[in-house]
Amino acid sequence: MESITQDPLAFGVGARVTLSVMSDRYVKVILAAVDAADSSGLVLETGDVSTYAGGDEQALLRWLTDLTAHVAETGLHASVSVLLSRGCPGEAVCDLPGGAGPRRVDAPRGRHTGSFASAEWALYPLEDSGVGERTPDHMREIYAAIETAKVSGTFVASEHFVTKLSGDLGRILETVSVAWAGVGAHVQHVTSHLTISLNSPSHAPAATAGVHA
Amino acid sequence: MESITQDPLAFGVGARVTLSVMSDRYVKVILAAVDAADSSGLVLETGDVSTYAGGDEQALLRWLTDLTAHVAETGLHASVSVLLSRGCPGEAVCDLPGGAGPRRVDAPRGRHTGSFASAEWALYPLEDSGVGERTPDHMREIYAAIETAKVSGTFVASEHFVTKLSGDLGRILETVSVAWAGVGAHVQHVTSHLTISLNSPSHAPAATAGVHA
Repeated sequence: MESITQDPLAFGVGARVTLSVMSDRYVKVILAAVDAADSSGLVLETGDVSTYAGGDEQALLRWLTDLTAHVAETGLHASVSVLLSRGCPGEAVCDLPGGAGPRRVDAPRGRHTGSFASAEWALYPLEDSGVGERTPDHMREIYAAIETAKVSGTFVASEHFVTKLSGDLGRILETVSVAWAGVGAHVQHVTSHLTISLNSPSHAPAATAGVHA
Repeated sequence: MESITQDPLAFGVGARVTLSVMSDRYVKVILAAVDAADSSGLVLETGDVSTYAGGDEQALLRWLTDLTAHVAETGLHASVSVLLSRGCPGEAVCDLPGGAGPRRVDAPRGRHTGSFASAEWALYPLEDSGVGERTPDHMREIYAAIETAKVSGTFVASEHFVTKLSGDLGRILETVSVAWAGVGAHVQHVTSHLTISLNSPSHAPAATAGVHA
């Protein structure tokens, strides 16, 4: 199974992204963001609900950061819905049997964007049986991921069903990518859902307090 | 544990919803949709990323249908991100121990809205140990849920990481609610994520083919 874990597309490493720009100019902004994002190393497929990107964790994080930073820089209010998945390629129903993984990679590295974001994050380790000496316990993996967020400085609070994150957009995306890949070192099938709010009217007082002259 | 499963708030039955209206008029449209939606029986909390609603499955489905149907009727392009959760109340980390559930309810009933929607759907049964004679197998539960979608007529295709649904907005929300509550009859902690696209420019030819004079 070594070759399957090493090939991100065979292992089903990818993302689905929905960019929603709350402006009459949304078509132009979304097309420009897609155009500005470096998608090298990724397979992209655009649908009417989301865009799918398949490829390795580092390339996905770079692309997600480029795409969302471009939207953030317009100053327009936008939300971004991101689904990350690894270990269950191809379909809603896994083509890969359990035991094909896990896949271990270096922690993906993000970049500072200079744009503030707030986000709600959920992480799902979907293992049916333990790997090696570990027995299934999805809450243990989630605790470890929340620790990752606390160390990164993006953790705000535990809310109903999600973890609230805020801070630099690039650091939020990095936190989520690192936790997803990190849990994936122990669990074959791991998904994560992130909803990001950019340039929210409700962010203005706190987020730009230091920016106003 | 009987009283915990019977009390939807104690059992953590709820939703988080992000409405994104791609128009300069987004604030007005979102406030009007929230105002138009019947939230009786629900606890609502509005945040800067999403609105949380807690309460029973039937009240949640009614509220979600009201809210999104109002946006659909404006004719504006919008996306709606919905997270449903049950069996893990309060926080990202469950307050309820495993074994408190499952909770069994009548299948929630939706309504026809007259608005076309397309959507991407993921369902996560998060059990660590089997209930009764059943052993953990999250893919078995997902197969059963996809069967629910096929019977309802909203199933389109299995895509990377999600199931594609389309049809009447109310039927899509009903399909997802029924599958979520149905899997929840066997598994304590079940979440589901749905991204809905309303009035998409790419829907126009097919979705309104019968509407043009």
